[in-house]
Amino acid sequence: MKILLLNPNTSEVLTTQLTEVATRYAAVGTEIVPATGAFGVPYIANRAEAVIGASAALEILAQQHDQVDGAILAAFGDPGLGAARELFDIPIVGLAEAGMLTACMLGKKFAIVTFSTALGAWYQECVEWNQLQDRCCAIRMLDQPFNSIGAVRDEKEDLLAELALAAVRENGADVIVLAGAPLSGLADRIRHRVPVPMIDCCAAAIKQIEALVSLNLKAPETGTYCRPGAKDTTGLSAALAARIEHRS
Amino acid sequence: MKILLLNPNTSEVLTTQLTEVATRYAAVGTEIVPATGAFGVPYIANRAEAVIGASAALEILAQQHDQVDGAILAAFGDPGLGAARELFDIPIVGLAEAGMLTACMLGKKFAIVTFSTALGAWYQECVEWNQLQDRCCAIRMLDQPFNSIGAVRDEKEDLLAELALAAVRENGADVIVLAGAPLSGLADRIRHRVPVPMIDCCAAAIKQIEALVSLNLKAPETGTYCRPGAKDTTGLSAALAARIEHRS
Amino acid sequence: MKILLLNPNTSEVLTTQLTEVATRYAAVGTEIVPATGAFGVPYIANRAEAVIGASAALEILAQQHDQVDGAILAAFGDPGLGAARELFDIPIVGLAEAGMLTACMLGKKFAIVTFSTALGAWYQECVEWNQLQDRCCAIRMLDQPFNSIGAVRDEKEDLLAELALAAVRENGADVIVLAGAPLSGLADRIRHRVPVPMIDCCAAAIKQIEALVSLNLKAPETGTYCRPGAKDTTGLSAALAARIEHRS
Amino acid sequence: MKILLLNPNTSEVLTTQLTEVATRYAAVGTEIVPATGAFGVPYIANRAEAVIGASAALEILAQQHDQVDGAILAAFGDPGLGAARELFDIPIVGLAEAGMLTACMLGKKFAIVTFSTALGAWYQECVEWNQLQDRCCAIRMLDQPFNSIGAVRDEKEDLLAELALAAVRENGADVIVLAGAPLSGLADRIRHRVPVPMIDCCAAAIKQIEALVSLNLKAPETGTYCRPGAKDTTGLSAALAARIEHRS
Amino acid sequence: MKILLLNPNTSEVLTTQLTEVATRYAAVGTEIVPATGAFGVPYIANRAEAVIGASAALEILAQQHDQVDGAILAAFGDPGLGAARELFDIPIVGLAEAGMLTACMLGKKFAIVTFSTALGAWYQECVEWNQLQDRCCAIRMLDQPFNSIGAVRDEKEDLLAELALAAVRENGADVIVLAGAPLSGLADRIRHRVPVPMIDCCAAAIKQIEALVSLNLKAPETGTYCRPGAKDTTGLSAALAARIEHRS
Amino acid sequence: MKILLLNPNTSEVLTTQLTEVATRYAAVGTEIVPATGAFGVPYIANRAEAVIGASAALEILAQQHDQVDGAILAAFGDPGLGAARELFDIPIVGLAEAGMLTACMLGKKFAIVTFSTALGAWYQECVEWNQLQDRCCAIRMLDQPFNSIGAVRDEKEDLLAELALAAVRENGADVIVLAGAPLSGLADRIRHRVPVPMIDCCAAAIKQIEALVSLNLKAPETGTYCRPGAKDTTGLSAALAARIEHRS
Repeated sequence: MKILLLNPNTSEVLTTQLTEVATRYAAVGTEIVPATGAFGVPYIANRAEAVIGASAALEILAQQHDQVDGAILAAFGDPGLGAARELFDIPIVGLAEAGMLTACMLGKKFAIVTFSTALGAWYQECVEWNQLQDRCCAIRMLDQPFNSIGAVRDEKEDLLAELALAAVRENGADVIVLAGAPLSGLADRIRHRVPVPMIDCCAAAIKQIEALVSLNLKAPETGTYCRPGAKDTTGLSAALAARIEHRS
Repeated sequence: MKILLLNPNTSEVLTTQLTEVATRYAAVGTEIVPATGAFGVPYIANRAEAVIGASAALEILAQQHDQVDGAILAAFGDPGLGAARELFDIPIVGLAEAGMLTACMLGKKFAIVTFSTALGAWYQECVEWNQLQDRCCAIRMLDQPFNSIGAVRDEKEDLLAELALAAVRENGADVIVLAGAPLSGLADRIRHRVPVPMIDCCAAAIKQIEALVSLNLKAPETGTYCRPGAKDTTGLSAALAARIEHRS
Repeated sequence: MKILLLNPNTSEVLTTQLTEVATRYAAVGTEIVPATGAFGVPYIANRAEAVIGASAALEILAQQHDQVDGAILAAFGDPGLGAARELFDIPIVGLAEAGMLTACMLGKKFAIVTFSTALGAWYQECVEWNQLQDRCCAIRMLDQPFNSIGAVRDEKEDLLAELALAAVRENGADVIVLAGAPLSGLADRIRHRVPVPMIDCCAAAIKQIEALVSLNLKAPETGTYCRPGAKDTTGLSAALAARIEHRS
Repeated sequence: MKILLLNPNTSEVLTTQLTEVATRYAAVGTEIVPATGAFGVPYIANRAEAVIGASAALEILAQQHDQVDGAILAAFGDPGLGAARELFDIPIVGLAEAGMLTACMLGKKFAIVTFSTALGAWYQECVEWNQLQDRCCAIRMLDQPFNSIGAVRDEKEDLLAELALAAVRENGADVIVLAGAPLSGLADRIRHRVPVPMIDCCAAAIKQIEALVSLNLKAPETGTYCRPGAKDTTGLSAALAARIEHRS
Repeated sequence: MKILLLNPNTSEVLTTQLTEVATRYAAVGTEIVPATGAFGVPYIANRAEAVIGASAALEILAQQHDQVDGAILAAFGDPGLGAARELFDIPIVGLAEAGMLTACMLGKKFAIVTFSTALGAWYQECVEWNQLQDRCCAIRMLDQPFNSIGAVRDEKEDLLAELALAAVRENGADVIVLAGAPLSGLADRIRHRVPVPMIDCCAAAIKQIEALVSLNLKAPETGTYCRPGAKDTTGLSAALAARIEHRS
Repeated sequence: MKILLLNPNTSEVLTTQLTEVATRYAAVGTEIVPATGAFGVPYIANRAEAVIGASAALEILAQQHDQVDGAILAAFGDPGLGAARELFDIPIVGLAEAGMLTACMLGKKFAIVTFSTALGAWYQECVEWNQLQDRCCAIRMLDQPFNSIGAVRDEKEDLLAELALAAVRENGADVIVLAGAPLSGLADRIRHRVPVPMIDCCAAAIKQIEALVSLNLKAPETGTYCRPGAKDTTGLSAALAARIEHRS
């Protein structure tokens, strides 16, 4: 199967890291098709940037959805996930959703651990959108600046391991969800330092999208993610306009 | 005070209708500054269109926020409301938020009544985003097509009055929130036919933004709607890029 | 419009302070009609005193409701608010309700900050009655005695500013709701010391009651706040008996 | 033990009925001390009347609390229950509280069945005050007038049995809580007609207050129901003023 | 009335302690019939042991249910309580359920205080099964080993009193639920050291089962605890098989 | 990888059906190891039978856990899932859990559709144990008897397709979770008749356990599913006693 690994951030370095992790965890026969946001910010950290990232994600999907079997929306926070499911017929999972639902099979309470306080308000909304507030015991964030988004996982490795440990000891986390596309790949390096299961969201997402594609499902013809009727558009890209107007 | 009445839909006719209602309910000394979405769809009905509408809203705010005292995000569903509050320092209210919170002072349970089933899934997410699920007893929607978005409030006047009545009788609504920018102005015409208070969301929004502007508040320097730090951008409009990059 | 500013406490000094604040924030054309509880305690702090204050409030409304366009129930905790809405046809808002709903437009989480631990249990019930538990992150209270109810806002000004700051830092409050009629007027003096918006509930209440009166609503003919049918009474004041017995 | 059976309604006939049921279910050695509200309405049906009934209840307790071991607040809706617990040191239970908590030991979901739609909004608030919304599947009410409050249980016996049956069949009730002081005594007559356990709230209340008195508990010295500090009062009855002022 | 005091643990010493407490609090005319689990562990502390304890409880009930009027499932956590209610027609209460529901009549928030961290996860599930999360402010546990399960209440008396006090001061508990069959009998010894009411769950359970037996209820013929239809079994004890197969 | 497919029911025919479905959906390299409950009932339908089935499941796991990489608890309702996770170090998923969490990636609301009303109360508790009440819009059940548990999926195929359709139309289900081990394999036959995605829980479970085994997780050393300390046992099977006593 072909899986679109859609990074709605503009950082190519993140796409590379995500692709490396997804490939490592992919099943035999799964092909990863990477894509990077054409506009926006290097890494999405808040609701304003998520609005822009969601648009970037819809653009990529409009261009490539008919060439793949499923897609991963590869930013924790899952910008535009509901919108993407409405517009396109293939299964799509978000990094946050995949990480959190997987965590639910490993413990009662998970903690989200990430590298910057700037991400907290948006991640909280993401937990609520998934209606998983009762399963999330904490969002723990480092509060110091970092040098580069592509190397934050290396620079903060020790601090993130300690923060995960604090989430276990102080917040009662049964599982750690290591959050943020820039941290993909880190869990394998620090899980021996943390006494509970630790989720790499990119790894979880590739397994979950493989699961969905395998399950022989149909696109919904009604309900919350049913494709909306055709509508006129103004000022959109050709691919996205065509999709909304039912010309593709 | 000057209030930006921001219609994130591309329909000028809706801007005109909204302006007419806002002006009717505005206090002495309130000036309404209308604006219409430069790209997107004639009326936003779902999450995919809301992603686009949210971008359109951020664009307008980037251009005009420093010339007004407050803003109304004039689409029920409030596309990009959280994003807008992060990026800009003025008070901003959404049509849905203003209508629903006002309804909370008039009854225990409100029902949302609108003109198309296409709006239901998005409106439900809006109720949840506001954490008002316990106060919303139903979202009632007409299920037949309509002729034009600018005239749907006229065409469906009788049916909407009946639907509101059904929400009272069958769902126990204490208050009716007439939802959707295209229905602004209708409440005044049909409230005599419904036995409970009926909210015109545009009217509620002008009163609520006037309230916020009057209250002598400060922009948050921390917390969920604190302005994010400067960040590089790629491919955005000049005004929006300048705001995100802290050049304006 | 004429707004009854109903202080259900027996302290005239509080009525004077509340009137001063309401007048400062009132729109052009709004006339404030102050009234003070005829029996009860100097300031209501708990459920037992709220029962008595609610009776006092109903008495005042029974006497004056037909001479005003709306009323403010001017004790945080809103004693008898639901009862008042049942019995009388004019819009009525409570200090707590107005403050908390206004806060919902400014942040995700508000904290209630007040001057005495004696108020905590009652305020908690008030939050729950409004079904706003998910929006209230803390009720913070000073725990030392004060000299006089009319001067507590002066005596404790510094401590309350510090407590508000603690609610922001320790509880993650996005907005501060300064609670308790005796604190009305304080927000304007200390808001520069707190990094998030701070609500003066009396100011919020005058704006909210103005909004409701402006919205052209009808009294409910059914639902939770519909006026009950006539019923015989024993031992009540003439005005309240007349209202319950449908003789007025 | 001596148990004050406090009817906050003014109807002596209800006091008689309640006393008869309480006596029938009381343990050997329990003495019932009946009391009737001195002012208010014949039967409390809404929040306005509950404010008055709560005052009446506090009056009776102020006069008699030191002569009994515990008290039953004998109106479903439990007007002033929290207030009463604050002011007085003896255990006190409400009819609604006792009925609903007892029902929780007999099924997952209970339905409240009563004789008039006028009671619905108030009963709903009572369920919420007890935070038992997840256990209450319905409040079912007869919607026709009745002849006399003292005979409503006889007049409506068949209709109430049918309504209870409907709550089982249509709402999935595992237990029926027959609600309202005027229905005390009815359960024993109709329980053979309903396929699930049916609670007589007065019977439940006498068992629960006996339980509390037996359990060797202490009055709280802190927490939500701790007695408030002394406070001056104006215009209250001698007994209530003395209690609030800590002179008794 | 005859009450089966069913200890699903294998420790006879706990049965003795529980019987002593139940007898002390039982009404005149109540006969306690003690029983001890025939297989399993000395004291149930987690979900795995609760599965085994639930089986042991069903066995005892299968043998003795028709010789008693009601039963107490005497392990906090109430292993198999729902199962027991399905299979048998007599009223049955659990230690946890009885303790927590009784606490609800004494305060808004209760804390569970117990002797070992090993019990926490299971107790938390028990609170959730009863849907009392909003009433439970904390589960506080000692974190040191103890010498013998029959003497833990003596060995840890001081530490448990201090822990209860900490639950009041740090978690805002209005009531203490002293949890775990091994702690039965302790509350009477330490309640003078704690400023809020303290519940002995065994004492609460005997009062609650007496209440249920007194209330003249019927076994459900439908709903969640209705007896399941007959079904074939394999490999079960004679008594349990007979009950499931409707041969007894 | 080797996956234990643990059927806690005693019906070999169900084990055969489940194995057939799991094998069909398993990835290349996954080996299914089937096992059937040694005691209990042909199919578990309620809490009483789930207690017994949970014991049967623990027995099988005690015997085989060290020979496999993961396990599926193959009865919807997931009897003993928490207990199994505590006692054993391998990943384990339940049919219900896997089906419901997978459904969460396909819609906002799922409905559970099954073949007998006897299953409803237990399934409801399972939804609550997973804290997915907000995502489950209905449990729909056929209410007529069936001939044989091994052929119920054939006998009721049409009725179940219609019931699924009703759940979509009447309850607003975005996804159908076809529930109960006896229905495994049916989804592939009827999904063309239902307008939303339909989950076969056995298929979902094999994909989810493959995901968990692939994710390189560690067994928890603390938290809710940490293995309990060694404890003496009485009267248990050799394998289970050894595991609880830490001799294996």
